[in-house]
Amino acid sequence: MIVLGLDPGTRHFGWGLVERRGTRLVHHAHGVVHTDEREPIAKRLVTIERALVEVLGAHAPGVASVEALFFAKDAQAAAKLGHARGVALLVCARAGLEVFEYPPARVKRTIAGSGRAEKSQVAQMIRVLLGLSVAPVADAADALALAVTHLQHAQHLAALAAGMKGVSRG
Amino acid sequence: MIVLGLDPGTRHFGWGLVERRGTRLVHHAHGVVHTDEREPIAKRLVTIERALVEVLGAHAPGVASVEALFFAKDAQAAAKLGHARGVALLVCARAGLEVFEYPPARVKRTIAGSGRAEKSQVAQMIRVLLGLSVAPVADAADALALAVTHLQHAQHLAALAAGMKGVSRG
Repeated sequence: MIVLGLDPGTRHFGWGLVERRGTRLVHHAHGVVHTDEREPIAKRLVTIERALVEVLGAHAPGVASVEALFFAKDAQAAAKLGHARGVALLVCARAGLEVFEYPPARVKRTIAGSGRAEKSQVAQMIRVLLGLSVAPVADAADALALAVTHLQHAQHLAALAAGMKGVSRG
Repeated sequence: MIVLGLDPGTRHFGWGLVERRGTRLVHHAHGVVHTDEREPIAKRLVTIERALVEVLGAHAPGVASVEALFFAKDAQAAAKLGHARGVALLVCARAGLEVFEYPPARVKRTIAGSGRAEKSQVAQMIRVLLGLSVAPVADAADALALAVTHLQHAQHLAALAAGMKGVSRG
């Protein structure tokens, strides 16, 4: 199953696609949707929707992994982020994708070993984990990191479930 | 031209349609989209999108009037509101509607004469202005109030433009 990671933003919207094949993480694609700040927000959301619909159509991911809402920033920033995030959730749910959410600190810890890791550390770890020749730009790296975090979480749950089956059999 | 007023919210999403014919305000329709709090936000946004697309298809408004972002509430509330508002702006822009934004205090002042008017006063004034037999429920009343505010604003601009033409002719 291909996981779509999404790092929503009204100016720069990161996305990335990762799949697990056995023990290997396979990178499919990543990118950033940039919108023009001089355009009204409504038009920029249409740009974001179109780009996401295109990504879904081209790569057919099975689930989505989106940054959970966090509230370090002020209300205005939170509301703006909410606009882009709302469109992301809408497009995913409309396509039948289950949406998982992970807080930024958890993603950093999963990828770089610390909840306080720098963005550049996350990008470098993503480069290594996915065998890329260069580190992706920050927004795409965060999106790929969300996808990898979900894959690790799903594997952990599967291992737990297998362990519980073992116990019930014993 | 029919104006679509929108009062976004993830739980209760108000909408209302008003048209000016000469000096008369003509009420077309109004309603509230309710979503199930137990559902994930992504699914609730799909419900909101579908309802808005239906309203646009049935009534073909020419412009939209949406509550401007205001930040009296905390960041979490602002982000949640942003999700619903983002979907509203997306649906309107996608349908080619120009979107106007008015702050709540301005809407209250236009409809009820005071920027601090109570919700119930706004609803009662909307009932009178649109000749309805009963006051609409709060969220729909706010949406109708946004539509009427835009019509008043558009008329004011038209009057200004006419006055300026008069001056240039004189």
